[in-house]
This record gives sequence, structure tokens and C-alpha cells, in this order.
Amino acid sequence: MDLQHLRPSQEHDAPIYLQLYRRYREAITSGKLLPGDRVPSVRSLASELSLARGTVEMAYQMLASEGYFVARGAAGTVVSPRLGSLAEPRDATLPVPIVHASTHPHAMPSEALPFQLGLPALDAFPRKAWARLAGRCLRTLETVAMTYPDPAGYDPLRRAIAAYLGISRGIACSHEQVFVTVGYRGALELVCRTLLQAGDVGWYEDPGYLFARQFLARAGMCLEPVPVDEEGLNVRIGQQRATHARFAVVTPTHQSPMGVALSLPRRLELLDWSNHRQAWIIEDDYDSEFRYHGRPLPALKSLDRDGRVLYTGTFSKVLFPGLQLAYLVVPASQIGKFRDTVNHLPGPGSILPQAMVADFMEQGHFGRHLRRMRTLYAERRSYLVDALRQTMGERLHVQPQAGGIHVLAHLNAQQNDNVLTVAAQAKGLAIQALSNWRMRESSQGGLLMGFTNFATAEDAVVSVRRLNAALGKH
Amino acid sequence: MDLQHLRPSQEHDAPIYLQLYRRYREAITSGKLLPGDRVPSVRSLASELSLARGTVEMAYQMLASEGYFVARGAAGTVVSPRLGSLAEPRDATLPVPIVHASTHPHAMPSEALPFQLGLPALDAFPRKAWARLAGRCLRTLETVAMTYPDPAGYDPLRRAIAAYLGISRGIACSHEQVFVTVGYRGALELVCRTLLQAGDVGWYEDPGYLFARQFLARAGMCLEPVPVDEEGLNVRIGQQRATHARFAVVTPTHQSPMGVALSLPRRLELLDWSNHRQAWIIEDDYDSEFRYHGRPLPALKSLDRDGRVLYTGTFSKVLFPGLQLAYLVVPASQIGKFRDTVNHLPGPGSILPQAMVADFMEQGHFGRHLRRMRTLYAERRSYLVDALRQTMGERLHVQPQAGGIHVLAHLNAQQNDNVLTVAAQAKGLAIQALSNWRMRESSQGGLLMGFTNFATAEDAVVSVRRLNAALGKH
Repeated sequence: MDLQHLRPSQEHDAPIYLQLYRRYREAITSGKLLPGDRVPSVRSLASELSLARGTVEMAYQMLASEGYFVARGAAGTVVSPRLGSLAEPRDATLPVPIVHASTHPHAMPSEALPFQLGLPALDAFPRKAWARLAGRCLRTLETVAMTYPDPAGYDPLRRAIAAYLGISRGIACSHEQVFVTVGYRGALELVCRTLLQAGDVGWYEDPGYLFARQFLARAGMCLEPVPVDEEGLNVRIGQQRATHARFAVVTPTHQSPMGVALSLPRRLELLDWSNHRQAWIIEDDYDSEFRYHGRPLPALKSLDRDGRVLYTGTFSKVLFPGLQLAYLVVPASQIGKFRDTVNHLPGPGSILPQAMVADFMEQGHFGRHLRRMRTLYAERRSYLVDALRQTMGERLHVQPQAGGIHVLAHLNAQQNDNVLTVAAQAKGLAIQALSNWRMRESSQGGLLMGFTNFATAEDAVVSVRRLNAALGKH
Repeated sequence: MDLQHLRPSQEHDAPIYLQLYRRYREAITSGKLLPGDRVPSVRSLASELSLARGTVEMAYQMLASEGYFVARGAAGTVVSPRLGSLAEPRDATLPVPIVHASTHPHAMPSEALPFQLGLPALDAFPRKAWARLAGRCLRTLETVAMTYPDPAGYDPLRRAIAAYLGISRGIACSHEQVFVTVGYRGALELVCRTLLQAGDVGWYEDPGYLFARQFLARAGMCLEPVPVDEEGLNVRIGQQRATHARFAVVTPTHQSPMGVALSLPRRLELLDWSNHRQAWIIEDDYDSEFRYHGRPLPALKSLDRDGRVLYTGTFSKVLFPGLQLAYLVVPASQIGKFRDTVNHLPGPGSILPQAMVADFMEQGHFGRHLRRMRTLYAERRSYLVDALRQTMGERLHVQPQAGGIHVLAHLNAQQNDNVLTVAAQAKGLAIQALSNWRMRESSQGGLLMGFTNFATAEDAVVSVRRLNAALGKH
């Protein structure tokens, strides 16, 4: 491949390393570079394109960490051979290739792409009210709020969260059990730093939330895939495969990505096992507010008599991800340990956003916002489901779900969901492949799609037609 | 001691665990409880005072983590025997007892206490301008700022920091080398996660900044104390004691706490050693803007030809600590590694505070604010120095310093600075003992005092008289 093709443009706004990264990625997804092909060394490419070595190195590091490149020591760097075939057994401990930067929520900021998962309806956020609230907040914040903040989180926010959880999720807790964190990863980080020991095994739902899995694996948790069926996590299989696990990571209200709720018998089995083994359950309650049929289920933690459940929630999907605020609720018996850990860690950041969210909750905006979003999402979900049925009904069918902010579409014929996803992402359509969210192989492929940013039925139709065209030849 | 004395009051606003913590601490500092005394178990105290066990446990965990309590397994929990005497050899790896919560910046939020270190002039912060800027910021932030932020930091802020460092600190760097973090601890966390391996040795200035030392020790760095003289860190002694160290942690512009600048010959020695050994220098440039005689010295990093210096700065002392924003500037060769790490860590938090600081810098407020503070601090420093000379001139003498936001006062007679400090802190005066900032014993005691929040000469006089009274009998 002609290296000059990789030359970034000085006129573009994007940083040079990013342009280089994108050009390599495009070369790979379009087949100009094939799996196994060798790429130039950092030094020689930098020299060839007159770039700083650090710039090239950064692009290479990103491509390596996302699974495009593999460094082979003296043999140089090659395009990952694993990108070519999915017939090879997948090593569950290796990071799964992420084929489009914007599908990794934390790779870099980007505009909302069509079908992008994990985003709330950005157009529907009450920005003016939020801005007014910010001004009032700043004018009235006490001087004490300017000093070193409590690394457990801003006290009024911890109280507002505890109150909200008591009412909405059935969790009776004191604010002292609540720890505010930088996003969901901050909550996982806090759990791992406090309770995880190297080599600890954790049950992980299979299929399950991709990004938490990568984070936990990197933090040193040995993840044991446990299958999900129509009742949710299959606790008995978990016990067969790894009865001595120290952790179980679950999404009981609305399984990510299959959408099922963990049934009551399974909840009781899981709590029983964790108490018997003194294991910890990490409950990720990420989008429980958005249930379309019936009332939201109480959290698993509402049944937690023995203090085994570490409950996490996030404001990313109910407010917006740019806030980077989430929280962890620990059993009362663990307050001291977690307090000790947070006292020695960077905290959840500035007080101002925390104070704003606390005010937003206390002044009733939060409850109103949730109710509006519930109605809006039910509507926008139907835009996508209808468009899919109309345009792509022969190729796939949408699995009905009781709630949530994504749609799971099963593929009708024997189609490879990864191949379809790469094709779609190459056209800027941010669907994801269900297979990517699995740890063990399965023939049951599917496509995951967000719908929250389809403002009109027409928007959904246009994007679905683009998707159909992108997948056309596969 | 009568346990009922520990009973928290239901009428007080402070959380119960905090009241219990404070009552224990007061009992210890006032001698009601002596070093070595056994305290009740969590279970029995909870029962005795009708408190939740988690509440008592939390108070006990805090007291243990701050060095007041020591858990002795089956033998129960005792008041730390080490609080009683400084004649015992100090184990440099054990956490130093922190005798007053408010002197630990990250223990909990508090009002600014007299003499408190590490705080800017809270009354002089332009809060109205800041509030207006927040409103404008929120109204104009792009929708993209609502999506998942770049964990390396908000791009305009990274650029503003790079520009500022180029002009003010002589550091030529690209914004891609800048990583925004949650406070200084976030910057250290990022360095440790990227470069530190268990058992790595790091030179640490002795005496040196207390809180970073505790953080690094806990992160797994084996700290080798290296003495500071009138030229700063003694590089030759560092080489004698630990030539194979992988790190050196320095405060070259204004040594914390002695105030000296690292001389040019020492800077060159240090850089030479680090290049020869491929070691890393962590430069903590925490209050370089506040120099009273002459221009601020360029940063050590401005001489870093070989890419060995990891430069950290913070907004805590030039804006306010509640922001919890700091930054790390890495050598260009390390961009890829650090980018890979941040992609898998919780980031620096919400975009809004970052956007506000970026605007504050770009719109010229930051430069103006620094100039105002430089003048203000020179003035407030003189209030304290004058008051000390007037009221306590026989007991201590202030060491002249070229800059900085604290004062170091040497004790004239053979006085134990720890004993004096405990007495002062018991009266709510947040001085610190120089000995606490040492790793190796020294007879040279001293008191560290902040002055930034003495709004008038009278304020300083009043507080110094209180201090004199508190120390009176010692």
C-alpha cells in the first residue's frame, strides 16, 4: 500500500495522530491492508511522512489497543490476523477488537452517530434549565465548596441519590453508603481497588456489557462466562462452572444486551449463593428507569438482606454522558473499607457538576425529565422498530423488550453479524454486533442499535435505508 | 474513659460517624485516651451507644487510616503507641499519623481554618465572573460536549494548558502531551498506572510534600529519602543511596516545604542521571506562579531534552481546590502509552468545569487573576510574618523564601514541633509540623503555616495570638 495514502492533511481540524489512525483503520476495513500484512515501523513511517515519532507512535498504540495491530517484536507490526476470521476460538481474556472508535464510549468524543448505543436523546435534554441552574448553583455555593472536596462525593448529592434510590428502586440506604464516582468505570475502579484480589474469579453474563467486561478483565478479575436465558443469568450453570467465584456482575433489571429481567427465583438463588460463598454481587442498574410495559422492577439490592450487593447507577444515560457522574452503593458493613479507599484515591472531580445534579434532583427537574424521556423513548423506539420492519423485515426481526434504550435485532438467515457490523461502521453507522458482546461462541448473531437520537420517524427511516444499503451485498 | 462521652448528638448536623471520629480524636489529643490504651470493639461500642455497627466501623476505619488507632487482631484495637513518642525510629514506609483531619486535604471538606496550607485566597476568587462564565459556557457548549468525553481531557483545555506552559513555564509541548486529571493525585495515579512496577524505587525529597509521599507509597513505590539543602535535592546523595532508582519526585521551582529552588547545576545533574539510568523525573510544579522576588524560574521540564520529565501542575492553588483539576505533561515519546492507559481508566470527570477553565484561560481572566494573586499573596505573607515577629519572635523565626503560599518558621529553642502542632490543632489552628514532612529523623523542627486567607493584618495578628496562647505552656 502506498504510504502517501496515509499522509494526514494539515488543513483538517483533527489532530494528526487521529487522522493517521483513521486512515489506517479505513485502509484495513476497506481491504487495502489485509490481516497479517506488515505495516511500517513507527520510525520509518514518521520519517517517510515527516511526522513526529510521538505522533505516529500514538496512532500505532491506539490501533494496537483496539485490536487492529499486533506488535511482533523483531518481526515488526502487522495487521491483526484475527480480524480476518471468526472461526478461530476466541480467547476470552484478550481484548475484543473494537472496529469503530465511536462505538467505544471512551475512545474519543464524537458526534452522535446513527444507531449509537449508550447515549440519551441529546436534543431533548433541558439545556436552558440546566444552564440557569448552573448560574444559581455557583452564586449560592458556600465557600466551603471551594475547598478540598470529600472524595466520597458532594454530600447533598449523596443524600439526593439515597433518597431517589429509596423511592424509585426500593433500596433503603443511608447517604453514607453512597460513593460518587467518575462514571461507571470509576465505580468499578472503586470496587476493584477495595475488594478485588489478583486472580479472583467473577461470573460475567454471556452475552454481557462489553465495556465493563474489558475494564474488569484489565483490572485483574478472571471472568467466567455464565449464560443468559429467558430468566436472565443462569445461576446454576454459574455454580457448576465456578462455584468459588468471588464476584458476580449482573444487569438484573434489563439484561445488557438481551433485555430480559432476572426473574425472582433467580434473584433469590443468586443472593443465596453469594451469601453462602461470601461473594460479592455487582449490580449494574444502568437504564432501569426506561421500562415501557409495567412499572420498573425493584433493584436486586432491595432484596439484599445479607449485605452482598454492590449497586451501581449512572447519570450518563438519564442526563448525559459528558457529566461523567455515577455512583456506587455499598452495604453498610463495607462503609469503612470504601471510605478508607476513597480517602487515598482521586475522587469524583469538581464539586460544581455534583452540586448541579443534586439541585436538579432536589428541585424536581430529575423526576420530570425521567417521565418525559420514558414517553419519548417509547416513541423513538417505535420509529426504529417500524423502519426496520418495513425496510429490513426479511433480513432481521427485532426482539421485543420490556425496556431499555437499545434494540436487539436477530438475523434471519445464517449471517455473520461481525461482517455486517464492520460494513455498517465503515459507513458511519454505529451498530454493534451481538457476537462482540459474547465471550463464548454462539451461532445466534444479532445487531445492537440505539434509537434515542432519532428525533422523527423520518430520521429512523433514512438511517435504516442507509443501513440496508451498507449491508446490501453481504 | 467513660464511653458515654463519645455519644454523638442527634441535633448536630454532622454525620454520626464524623462526630464519633472527632470525639475520639479530641479525647486522644487532650490526653483522656493515652497512646497504647485499648478502645472498645466496634460491636461493643455500637451496642453501648445504640449506633449502627457500620457507623462505628467507619469512624474506626478513619481513625486507623490516620494513625490514631492500631488494630491488634485478637488483642483488640489500641490508641497508637507511636503518637506518644518521637524517640522511636520512624519506619519510612508506614503512614505518618495525621493528627488533624483538616490538615489532610482529602479527608473531608471543611471551612478554611487559620494557617491552613494548600488553599488559595478563597475570598479573592472572582466568583461572579466565574458564575457568568459558567452560564455562557453551558449555553454555547456543543452537543458533542454532552457525549462521552475524551478521558485524556477536554481538548480546548489541553490546548490552553499547553499554550500557558509554553509562555509561562518555558515548556514547549503539544496539547497531545497534556492529560487532564482529577487533582494532583489523579496525575500521580496516571503516572503510576502507566510506568510504575511493584518494587520500583523512587527518590523522595526529605523533607518533602507529605500527601504525595503517602499516595506514592500506597501505590507501591519504594521511597528513598534524599536530603534537601540550600540548592535543593542533593542529587549526589541520591545516587549514593539508590543509584538504580526508577523515579525521582521533585519540586524544583519552590521546594515543598523548604522553599529553595533547585539550582541549575543540580537540575543538570538530575537530568543527566535520569537519562543515564533511563529513570523518570516527576516534577511537581505546584505553586510556581507565586514568586515574590524576581521572575518565576522556568520549569525543570524546559531543560528536558531527553524526554525524562513527567511534569505535573494543578489548578487547586491558583483557582480553587473544589475544581479538582490538574494536569500531567508527558514526553512526546510516551503519548501512546499514556493514551492507552487513560482509555481504560475513569477520566478527569465532567466536561463543564474543564470547559470553564479553558474559557477562563483563553479569555484572559487567568493571567489577570494570577497577577492579582501574586500581589495579594505578597501582602498577606507580610501580615503573617509581621505578626509572628511581633508576638512570637522569641520562640521562632521565619525562614525567608522567594515564593510560595506557605511560611516555614524555625523553632529557636529545642522544641518538639509535633507536640506544638498537636496543641495548636486541638484549638482549630491548622499549622503543620515540619517533622511530619520528614522521612528521616532530624533535630531541625519547624512549623508550616498558610497565610493566604488572612484578609487583613488584624486577622493575622488575632490568629497568631491564638497560636501563641495555644502553644503557651509547651
